[in-house]
Amino acid sequence: MPQKDELLSGFVQELRRGTIILCVLAKLREAAYGYDLIAQLADSDIVIEANTLYPMLRRLESQGLLESSWNTDAAKPRKYYSTTKFGEEILAELTAFWQKSAENLNEILGGENL
Amino acid sequence: MPQKDELLSGFVQELRRGTIILCVLAKLREAAYGYDLIAQLADSDIVIEANTLYPMLRRLESQGLLESSWNTDAAKPRKYYSTTKFGEEILAELTAFWQKSAENLNEILGGENL
Repeated sequence: MPQKDELLSGFVQELRRGTIILCVLAKLREAAYGYDLIAQLADSDIVIEANTLYPMLRRLESQGLLESSWNTDAAKPRKYYSTTKFGEEILAELTAFWQKSAENLNEILGGENL
Repeated sequence: MPQKDELLSGFVQELRRGTIILCVLAKLREAAYGYDLIAQLADSDIVIEANTLYPMLRRLESQGLLESSWNTDAAKPRKYYSTTKFGEEILAELTAFWQKSAENLNEILGGENL
């Protein structure tokens, strides 16, 4: 069935989209620059492309969840992002919501054939 | 901060959107009509509105993941949906993906302050 992979990849994309902000806010409790964050996420098996992540970082900064500063110590200046206090608050509430949903979902999925 | 609730509800919406299809495909292993499915999901603390669910059911049917039939035994004819074999295959793959992501996410979230 040729459409199967296409369908799956769309659904997987939707599953990913919702959780990526949780990962970003959690990881950026320790300041990191974009490329470093991509590598950290990849270590956790979370694949995100630069052209998806960078606009997201800018959006989260404009929403007050992240803040950024330039580090010019190294040869190449780098923009470091970190989670703000407001970002932490949002992260805490989203984490609570996510954990509750994950339990519910596990029950629905696991109750039947896992 | 007045925008907090608005932001949160957008993020929660995104988290929900990805997982709802998992719930629907899993629940519809036993045929159900729309309103009944809404009630079943509500029992699992998953809130979905009829005007979100009904188009989704039709879309999943057109993608071959669900099939439907009319039950006219009761006073009011009802359209029952159930998960197809193809839907089961997609569900199995999505479940595997979701469980792996949930583990990764738990690690990211839990490793820091839970």
